[in-house]
Amino acid sequence: MAKRVAIIGAGSSGLCNIKCCLDEGLEPVCFESSDDIGGLWRFKEDPEKDRASIYKSVIINTSKEMMCFSDYPIPDDFPNYMHNSKILDYFRMYAKHFDLLKYIRFRTKVCSITKHADFSHNGKWDVVTETDGKQDSSVFDAILVCTGHHTYPHMPLDSFPGITKFKGRYFHSRDYKNPYEFTDKRVIVIGIGNSGGDLAVEISRIAKQVFLSTRRGAWIINRVGDKGYPADVILSCRFYLYLKELMTTSMLNKWIEKQLDSRFDHSHYGLKPQHRFFSQHPTVNDDLPNCIISGKVLVKPNIREFTETAAIFEDGSKEDDIDVVVFATGYSFSFPFLGDCVKVVDNQIPLYKFVFPPHLEKPTLAIIGLVQPLGAIMPLAEMQARWATRVFKGLAKLPSASEMMADITMKQECMAKRYVKSQRHTIQVDYVEYMDELASLIDVKPNVGTLFLKDPKLALEVVFGPCSPYQYRLQGPGKWDGARKAILTQNDRILKPLRTRQTDNTERNAGVPLWLKLIGLVALFAAILAYF
Amino acid sequence: MAKRVAIIGAGSSGLCNIKCCLDEGLEPVCFESSDDIGGLWRFKEDPEKDRASIYKSVIINTSKEMMCFSDYPIPDDFPNYMHNSKILDYFRMYAKHFDLLKYIRFRTKVCSITKHADFSHNGKWDVVTETDGKQDSSVFDAILVCTGHHTYPHMPLDSFPGITKFKGRYFHSRDYKNPYEFTDKRVIVIGIGNSGGDLAVEISRIAKQVFLSTRRGAWIINRVGDKGYPADVILSCRFYLYLKELMTTSMLNKWIEKQLDSRFDHSHYGLKPQHRFFSQHPTVNDDLPNCIISGKVLVKPNIREFTETAAIFEDGSKEDDIDVVVFATGYSFSFPFLGDCVKVVDNQIPLYKFVFPPHLEKPTLAIIGLVQPLGAIMPLAEMQARWATRVFKGLAKLPSASEMMADITMKQECMAKRYVKSQRHTIQVDYVEYMDELASLIDVKPNVGTLFLKDPKLALEVVFGPCSPYQYRLQGPGKWDGARKAILTQNDRILKPLRTRQTDNTERNAGVPLWLKLIGLVALFAAILAYF
Repeated sequence: MAKRVAIIGAGSSGLCNIKCCLDEGLEPVCFESSDDIGGLWRFKEDPEKDRASIYKSVIINTSKEMMCFSDYPIPDDFPNYMHNSKILDYFRMYAKHFDLLKYIRFRTKVCSITKHADFSHNGKWDVVTETDGKQDSSVFDAILVCTGHHTYPHMPLDSFPGITKFKGRYFHSRDYKNPYEFTDKRVIVIGIGNSGGDLAVEISRIAKQVFLSTRRGAWIINRVGDKGYPADVILSCRFYLYLKELMTTSMLNKWIEKQLDSRFDHSHYGLKPQHRFFSQHPTVNDDLPNCIISGKVLVKPNIREFTETAAIFEDGSKEDDIDVVVFATGYSFSFPFLGDCVKVVDNQIPLYKFVFPPHLEKPTLAIIGLVQPLGAIMPLAEMQARWATRVFKGLAKLPSASEMMADITMKQECMAKRYVKSQRHTIQVDYVEYMDELASLIDVKPNVGTLFLKDPKLALEVVFGPCSPYQYRLQGPGKWDGARKAILTQNDRILKPLRTRQTDNTERNAGVPLWLKLIGLVALFAAILAYF
Repeated sequence: MAKRVAIIGAGSSGLCNIKCCLDEGLEPVCFESSDDIGGLWRFKEDPEKDRASIYKSVIINTSKEMMCFSDYPIPDDFPNYMHNSKILDYFRMYAKHFDLLKYIRFRTKVCSITKHADFSHNGKWDVVTETDGKQDSSVFDAILVCTGHHTYPHMPLDSFPGITKFKGRYFHSRDYKNPYEFTDKRVIVIGIGNSGGDLAVEISRIAKQVFLSTRRGAWIINRVGDKGYPADVILSCRFYLYLKELMTTSMLNKWIEKQLDSRFDHSHYGLKPQHRFFSQHPTVNDDLPNCIISGKVLVKPNIREFTETAAIFEDGSKEDDIDVVVFATGYSFSFPFLGDCVKVVDNQIPLYKFVFPPHLEKPTLAIIGLVQPLGAIMPLAEMQARWATRVFKGLAKLPSASEMMADITMKQECMAKRYVKSQRHTIQVDYVEYMDELASLIDVKPNVGTLFLKDPKLALEVVFGPCSPYQYRLQGPGKWDGARKAILTQNDRILKPLRTRQTDNTERNAGVPLWLKLIGLVALFAAILAYF
């Protein structure tokens, strides 16, 4: 009999986890507390308790060829960076195509997940759910937790003396929906993460003045990268991964900081942080420099204290007549329904490769999507599920608890060394590196050497083109026949939605310049020859 | 007795024209049909007949150091690109500082301006005005027409078959005020000039879909130029003027097109025109590529015809369920109150150096601000007034009518050769070249050679820094003692409003790279030595 797997949440992770279960012959049951799929990406006018919430205009900051599920490319006429409504369209298409809806129990909240009797032998779980006020309990062979990490607002009011006597309105960015109420107001946005940047820009178009307060500053990436290609298409490239090996972190930092400064000098714009580019999760924002140069957004340092009507900043400057303060201070995550099985302290959670709690007697519980990648999260969540489901089936093995703990500690130390200390930087991963790491565990990482001998055209695109998720469907379990074509046509799908008016000009390809490709190619062949 | 000069309009041109009259000891009387100064730049909720009209969010596309009047720098804390409300603030400060308001007769419309008896000898004019329904007539020694050229909407409905049966709403961009009514609508914006680009972007943030229809495409410039300096600060540089002499137009085009394409490939984005960069008045737009890559704006070719609900484009594609069409098709200008003195046909008007009608017996009427510069218009209008007032006084002479006509014809031919044929391209001038041309006529063009010998520090900034208006106050009539300081501190005024949060980094200067400066310097000294 097929093993039954409970999937908690029917957002983007939940959906692809259902499919991964089906691919492995498992029997998924997905519990979704709301009445629809899409999770975070389904916009609602009012935020709901214990659920992620987005504002109306949100456009994703990862591009379609990099964020799609690995065996279901996003339609070629969809824009590269999609509005949230388009993303939801894509998820609906995915769910329909793979017939996933029938595995979802809507309006069903998971109350608790506890170890079943004799867990150390059978690894089973008791799952208590509640539908329309009625509780139900059932036993599952395994659990995939897909509840996301943007649910609980982090609002460190203690760090802002005087905020309680401030007479204006203040709230967390989670509760922001649209800018209309800020017409002709003076607004402070605290925090320069992606939410803070987005809100500052959007509100500034209608407000009297927006102040963007940041303690550390930030490096700002534009969605529109070199020559107009999506930035992540250019940056997430296997070839750069090889180059990285040859360069020091300091060289890499210098290279990318120079590029970002050539767009606008981060020092002149009051944004330059003391830390280097790779030491902070980058902020993606297209319009911020334009808003700063036109004075719509004024960048300010951290706030020292509030008065009834004003904010006093750490440089001693004071801005009075403040109407609204938005705390874009991020999120914290927790899993209350898991009880003591998984403990989160200050957004720190010990998980083997960010997925498996290391101390369970049986590896039958996986946390999915609890990473913050430099890149898209959807394909990562899918890859985690492909690995986890094979672990559940016993086809992939986990090392011993002590080995897992050693790996966790090593990763935590790396993160602590690389990143600025912050609640934001506890689950950081690099897209290509992390995909490859998990893919190796289930033998789906593309073998570039072999590929160059068998299919050089494809190999060229795999190495020098964007490291799109299809690469992980070329071989091994879950191999997809459409992967080759999807890779070779990805450039067309990038250009089609841009080129809605014909111009009579020759096309150029994205990414690595030709001369660099040639050098890389020679080096690669040399390496292959040396290998044989 | 001082000559009396009638100034028509109290917009930006009118204000500086009052001041120029006072500087030359003339007696200005300014007639303003509304009850306030500012003209175009004073936002009103409803457009008024025969007056320019802007939308609420307009941010100017020339930066403060390039657009200010030459002896009154914009305060250092004002943003580089100002919102219209800030621009109006600046005009009010200017008017107050030079005590200009008392010369303005508000709510006074000019009905007609006709030659006074014996005009060929005395050059006087009869000016009939109307205040509160009561007409008045007086005689003036000279006229400065400052009514602008963004008053009368150009809406070529004949070129759009079927528009009359189209059941949605359609209107000219002049009547656009803000985007709210377009929420979740499908909107077509026709025209990719500055208005078309701005409206497409602003509406797209709230609409369901925006289509931007363009016959020719366009090269798009970003306000934020290299390293984040205002684009016009970088491009309007005296040194580049010298370099231009050494390069062909084709080389210049190639150089700038390559820069613009490196930001985003105009061909990939469906925007690349068949003509070269310098053949069209460029469109300034910061956010358009971001809107295109996220699919909020779809670029489309020209419209072949409308149906009741749809637009059919010239590539055969059809977009149905169109709610609104905005004609951002530009403006035409005319001067009805001047009768037969000045005739405009298809936006063509024969004026000597875009200011003086060549066939008047006496040069006592000047049209101010009737140019469309690659750069800021305010300092040009001021320079025109400095020249015109000296012509009125007899201190500067005009050549014969036939010489003036020859110059006019030559300029028209140059324009026809360089620019795409269009109603938009009849009054084009290049900022530095045109400023220098007028400045030479009244001996206020900076003498760079002498300056290098007398004040090398200043000369360096004059040559390699932005060609700001203060340069034309260093010598000759109207010399201003503050000019040197204004030039040497312009970089500070650019950076101050950007650097509202301190970062501990060294400053860099805008503009020409050091190695190019050194080469230029050597060449310049060689030229000076050769001269002596």
